[in-house]
Amino acid sequence: MIRLFVDSDLTEAARITIGAEPSHYLTRVMRLGPGAALLVFNGRDGEWRATLAEVSKRGCILVPEFQVRPQATTPDLELVIALVKRARLETIVEKAAELGVRRVRLVLTERTNADHANVARLTAIATEASEQTGRLDVPTVVAPQPLSVVLSGIEPGRRLMFCDEGGEATPVAEALSGAFAGPWAVLIGPEGGFSPAERAAIRDLAFALPVSLGPRILRADTAAIAALSVWQSTLGDWRGLEVGPSAAQVN
Amino acid sequence: MIRLFVDSDLTEAARITIGAEPSHYLTRVMRLGPGAALLVFNGRDGEWRATLAEVSKRGCILVPEFQVRPQATTPDLELVIALVKRARLETIVEKAAELGVRRVRLVLTERTNADHANVARLTAIATEASEQTGRLDVPTVVAPQPLSVVLSGIEPGRRLMFCDEGGEATPVAEALSGAFAGPWAVLIGPEGGFSPAERAAIRDLAFALPVSLGPRILRADTAAIAALSVWQSTLGDWRGLEVGPSAAQVN
Repeated sequence: MIRLFVDSDLTEAARITIGAEPSHYLTRVMRLGPGAALLVFNGRDGEWRATLAEVSKRGCILVPEFQVRPQATTPDLELVIALVKRARLETIVEKAAELGVRRVRLVLTERTNADHANVARLTAIATEASEQTGRLDVPTVVAPQPLSVVLSGIEPGRRLMFCDEGGEATPVAEALSGAFAGPWAVLIGPEGGFSPAERAAIRDLAFALPVSLGPRILRADTAAIAALSVWQSTLGDWRGLEVGPSAAQVN
Repeated sequence: MIRLFVDSDLTEAARITIGAEPSHYLTRVMRLGPGAALLVFNGRDGEWRATLAEVSKRGCILVPEFQVRPQATTPDLELVIALVKRARLETIVEKAAELGVRRVRLVLTERTNADHANVARLTAIATEASEQTGRLDVPTVVAPQPLSVVLSGIEPGRRLMFCDEGGEATPVAEALSGAFAGPWAVLIGPEGGFSPAERAAIRDLAFALPVSLGPRILRADTAAIAALSVWQSTLGDWRGLEVGPSAAQVN
């Protein structure tokens, strides 16, 4: 069944007007007509079964019928990634949504070529991927900030998995085995890697855990997907355990 | 330094003529001139430092100088993947090369829409990714075959990690923990999943290990990259151990 993210509160028999773009998607692309059923979520009220009550080019009206699933969240995992070229950045955001991160932070580094990203477009990609992957929230995409700002803004209690290409880091599975099960961020550098000064500064952080992703050089998008997958399988909700709604409960 | 895959044997002072396409890449794209140094490999003779001895539009001549690294192989890992749309299939092959598989087998399933793939183009993508990732061999891309043919052709001693979307499979990290460290294949279904009959047939295979990649629905390309990454981190050469040249030595 089609899943749609909406901004509005979901309550029984509310009448939710959606914009021209999702209306076009529902009626033209997916060819739904009046009375059709779909699933909606807003990141707060769980997943609801809804009916397409009125169809119009400018805006359809949806009526939530009943809640199908209570709200749940993904593990408290962030992806911190250096800006890369547009196509690969879009792949990374799509995959991060599927792999269950809560936030994607874009960072500017010494060897980052780009200095700007279309956050609205990346958010639309994250939303569509969240609809398709079945999650009940949409990851936030945070506009590019300098690396030093992002690192100094990491809140107490969050750990940083630093995917370190410089050799001598611990193999990732070994490093994560038995590790802290609270909030984490995964840090991936730009295509040319971090500069020696950046690398030294990251390794100096008490909350940083340098890990190795094997003997081959990985592109940034491959490294991001690989790192998030290994984290989810080792510490995240791929373990088959119930993951609570907040990080405090997890730990 | 630029890395180039060549077919020819690599021996001291051999004169290797390369075709118009790699010649264009070296001289026009990378702007190398006569006397420039590069690295070459052929999947058999290790990595050699070579000199661009003669430059021509129709074919440059390379002269190997000395071996830089002895031949090494990636772990004996295959990716068996249902045909998906071209762009995602190309992503999968690129990533599989970076993640260190030896072979990519394309399969036709009940719910596969496509029936044909451009194996030459996929091989070129695998070659370029192998050059960039630093490996000393190039994964083979095997033309599409029916699922039953591929499954019945799996040689004795190889295990099959079946990424099972049907629920109730063991979480992947738990399933692979302490598992057999010899040859494996990773099996990923088409976008619509395997049919119930296909799924039952796969689960009936004595050498198949059904695993779960978490609670969200993953696209085929995401699932492939995730599964290969978790395998490499748990049983492959991301563990930081020396991996021998043949499966027999690994086990």
